[in-house]
Amino acid sequence: MTRFRQLMKFLNQVQAQRIDEELMSTYAFSIDQLMELAGLSVASVVEYEFAHVKESPLLIVAGPGNNGGDALVAARHLKHFGFNPEVLYPKAPNNPLYLRLVKQCEDLDIPFHSKELSSSYIDDRYSMILDGIFGFSFKGDVRAPFDTVLNSLRSSSKPIVSIDIPSGWDVENGNVSGVGLCPKILISLTAPKLCARHFIEKGNDRSHYVGGRFVPRALVEKYELDTPNYIGSSQFAKLD
Amino acid sequence: MTRFRQLMKFLNQVQAQRIDEELMSTYAFSIDQLMELAGLSVASVVEYEFAHVKESPLLIVAGPGNNGGDALVAARHLKHFGFNPEVLYPKAPNNPLYLRLVKQCEDLDIPFHSKELSSSYIDDRYSMILDGIFGFSFKGDVRAPFDTVLNSLRSSSKPIVSIDIPSGWDVENGNVSGVGLCPKILISLTAPKLCARHFIEKGNDRSHYVGGRFVPRALVEKYELDTPNYIGSSQFAKLD
Repeated sequence: MTRFRQLMKFLNQVQAQRIDEELMSTYAFSIDQLMELAGLSVASVVEYEFAHVKESPLLIVAGPGNNGGDALVAARHLKHFGFNPEVLYPKAPNNPLYLRLVKQCEDLDIPFHSKELSSSYIDDRYSMILDGIFGFSFKGDVRAPFDTVLNSLRSSSKPIVSIDIPSGWDVENGNVSGVGLCPKILISLTAPKLCARHFIEKGNDRSHYVGGRFVPRALVEKYELDTPNYIGSSQFAKLD
Repeated sequence: MTRFRQLMKFLNQVQAQRIDEELMSTYAFSIDQLMELAGLSVASVVEYEFAHVKESPLLIVAGPGNNGGDALVAARHLKHFGFNPEVLYPKAPNNPLYLRLVKQCEDLDIPFHSKELSSSYIDDRYSMILDGIFGFSFKGDVRAPFDTVLNSLRSSSKPIVSIDIPSGWDVENGNVSGVGLCPKILISLTAPKLCARHFIEKGNDRSHYVGGRFVPRALVEKYELDTPNYIGSSQFAKLD
């Protein structure tokens, strides 16, 4: 993976936002398509890493933005994969896309929680936590109700998998506020953001994946993305 | 797979149409979501079966309906999987979804053909054919330009993979007109239709897959579907 080490580009916040906008304008993707593929890649990484604890419930924490949408899609796929996901959804947006994604989960009997869960409850009940709270649009301070949610998650001893950005981290500078999560696994979507450098520095017990196998060639060239070497029909690639 | 043999239900045409409608009404899926997952499962089967001929071009024939949409999605994913797909698209519908799917393929430099290709051209150029012409809504006679397209494909010696329904077949009674294709591989979506019984009877050199891993439990129970045993995060299952 020498090529990856030499060439991988990390995106800053503005680039990440622009790429997302271009995918849905210039490149004619619908948000439904992108979210479906992103959520599926996240669920596939969780299946790959946590198949051995498939029987015990896992906690999926969904925020109110696109990161939360990816998490809801991942919850549905994980249920199809034989897992027992439960969703913590403290702030449910009222837009049609999110209402549909919730309905699709409910139709699979996935339980929803709207009130925060204590870290002892989380430790007793769940085998792992999927963090889909804040994505690449996050800026500034963590506000209620997510400040207490992050507190509980941070105090839990269960492994955390973060979607795209460890929640609470500055998208470029990492966990500068100190209130961010410390995931064991990071799944960068489309391409790693700058904060992924700080994740990688944390050491060898961390795993970094990339998902979102839909990036058009012209976009790869424009942003000099170093897309990973996906294998076969896999929707994710492990980086090292 | 005894359970499969005993319990598998084949859908008639009306059931297949109703399930599709219910997925998009009662179960709140968008057509973008369903088509993305269906097309991805088709592409994943092709990758599984034809990885050894990845380098040579493959021909994807897309009809004007949902089956053609699945084929266009499959073409895009196959390009991401490292294949060299080309699309034969004799009748391009002018609706926004299909225009977007075509654009997404064009942005990956997938060539499009609008005029029929002779069977000798197909034999010389392509390693296999993905048949996404007619789906479960097909009824009656095969009309121009697809009569001549089916003729060329039927005269070709290359292996054909059909999406959901072998094109030209009656959805319930099989190749009663005699003008239908003879695929080596059938990928049933959601659940096999009645014509799949005739496909299976054709012998041991045929392979039958099911894709579309998104069917809600309530729908499975209502229609007594025998969903296959998908493995891990795979988007398809092989039946025998």
